[in-house]
Amino acid sequence: MAKIINLSQIREVIEKLDPIMAIEEGFVAYSKGRVVVPPVGELIFNDPPGDAHIKYGYIINDDYYLIKIASGFYENVKKGLPPNAGLMLLFNQKTGELVCILLDEGFLTNVRTAAAGAVAAKYMAPKMVHRIGIFGAGTQGKLQLEYLNSIINCKDVIVWGVNQEELDAYKANMEPRGYVVETTFEANDIASTCNLIVTATPTKTALLNADQIRKGTHITAMGSDTPEKNELDPAILQKADIVIADSISQCLERGEIYQAIKAGVLKKQQIVELGNVIAQKDLQRSSDEQISVVDLTGVAVQDIQIAKAVYKSIFFNF
Amino acid sequence: MAKIINLSQIREVIEKLDPIMAIEEGFVAYSKGRVVVPPVGELIFNDPPGDAHIKYGYIINDDYYLIKIASGFYENVKKGLPPNAGLMLLFNQKTGELVCILLDEGFLTNVRTAAAGAVAAKYMAPKMVHRIGIFGAGTQGKLQLEYLNSIINCKDVIVWGVNQEELDAYKANMEPRGYVVETTFEANDIASTCNLIVTATPTKTALLNADQIRKGTHITAMGSDTPEKNELDPAILQKADIVIADSISQCLERGEIYQAIKAGVLKKQQIVELGNVIAQKDLQRSSDEQISVVDLTGVAVQDIQIAKAVYKSIFFNF
Repeated sequence: MAKIINLSQIREVIEKLDPIMAIEEGFVAYSKGRVVVPPVGELIFNDPPGDAHIKYGYIINDDYYLIKIASGFYENVKKGLPPNAGLMLLFNQKTGELVCILLDEGFLTNVRTAAAGAVAAKYMAPKMVHRIGIFGAGTQGKLQLEYLNSIINCKDVIVWGVNQEELDAYKANMEPRGYVVETTFEANDIASTCNLIVTATPTKTALLNADQIRKGTHITAMGSDTPEKNELDPAILQKADIVIADSISQCLERGEIYQAIKAGVLKKQQIVELGNVIAQKDLQRSSDEQISVVDLTGVAVQDIQIAKAVYKSIFFNF
Repeated sequence: MAKIINLSQIREVIEKLDPIMAIEEGFVAYSKGRVVVPPVGELIFNDPPGDAHIKYGYIINDDYYLIKIASGFYENVKKGLPPNAGLMLLFNQKTGELVCILLDEGFLTNVRTAAAGAVAAKYMAPKMVHRIGIFGAGTQGKLQLEYLNSIINCKDVIVWGVNQEELDAYKANMEPRGYVVETTFEANDIASTCNLIVTATPTKTALLNADQIRKGTHITAMGSDTPEKNELDPAILQKADIVIADSISQCLERGEIYQAIKAGVLKKQQIVELGNVIAQKDLQRSSDEQISVVDLTGVAVQDIQIAKAVYKSIFFNF
């Protein structure tokens, strides 16, 4: 009989869990070609407008396979319901048996995305981060900072947002966790003072331009996951010494790398893949003067890894 | 919070439920173009060999959408496990919320397939069925007869199988339900005495040829759901007065109709779709002398309808 785990159980276990290593392993397996991820299944609804996406896949010779269902119904907000819903289903790869239903309501997608930001910083941030800059004061902007905690020993933070209310909430939320948080509406306040920058916004017009980016800056751009969204001026990727994709094939179709290639300032051969960067030291930063960009668009292997980590932690104290 | 229904609850409610009307409505909606069913998602495993299929879809403006997961791992039998596993997930089409998880382990797929056989007989069997012939003494061979019970008032049955043991088991299983069951290894014993024939086998070589089929015979062929499987000599479809597909687009790619078209003895324009036959009296049998064939390959709308029927019956006594 399959186990069923609800959101409060997942939230409880995730506090004790460090998903960063699981996500790292997933990226390495992905870049080694050991992950099978068929095209995403999609259902589109018109009245009211909504969509559901089915992502599924497995690591070859692993114990499990995963199916994740996520939906977005933006008119839910009017009804007092969250716009996003979702769950993950973990199956035995050797027998097909359903192992576990994770009723995470989309929470684990947020966690695995934040954990990927921490992986990017672990391998690509300069040795001494003196200030962290976060674009986006929403859920992901908060989680990115939270998951950097175990990787980056810096408590000086500046956050950029679109209204004072969300910025105040961000500050109120993060300062009790030991951070000193400044808030701003000016992108340059971040570019001119931070050497680790995370962009976590849904913007379609670039937040930063190339002139603002100083030597020794690392940027993790994780807001753009469609062909339309765009957080960084393509010239930033042109200026960067190292440009990293979570998935090269996916980043050729969406995200910052897609924008830079479309603009003609970046070539496919210049891109390296995050799983290879983790595995090969010579692909990592060779000096603290370099500018690096990691473009995160979200890969199904992250879902596979986070679901397994939660399941094992709950049932095997693993 | 989503409801979770396990197999024993499903078995209990299905006894009280008549899914035939639900399946009929589904076929009509399908033939009217009101059903959205994207291509099936597939995962293939090599060690041990296995596969998982993800079928999903919805009826436009209905209350729900469905995702069904089914797997086959044939080496499970060696481990004392069933080879097939599966579940269905019912979601709210207006909000994306997960409504119900049906842990049916593939059982509802068997039921919806048997119910489709009953729908075929309801609209296409001759007025007076004097004997029912079943090819295949397995689970589906039994269920087909069970679901004919409410539609066809005939208790005289002959069943064809591949070994005496399964035939004896079939007889022992069905006679206490009021049937008189003869068993045979000779296809012609069925063709020469029955005017309602159901084929429910996985054979790749035809069970029946055209010369054997007498006037006034109806055949429901439901065993073939791949391009390779084939239960009826293509000449039977050539000889038939009416040839019906559960889904024309699907039957052009698999099943008996696919075989007959490939053999050059049937044209696409000669095929009618089951949902249209249900809705339009002029497409149904016009005399008891006609030969008719219904080719069932399995359509996702059947899954949608059976899942909804079980859910509503359990939670709304509907």
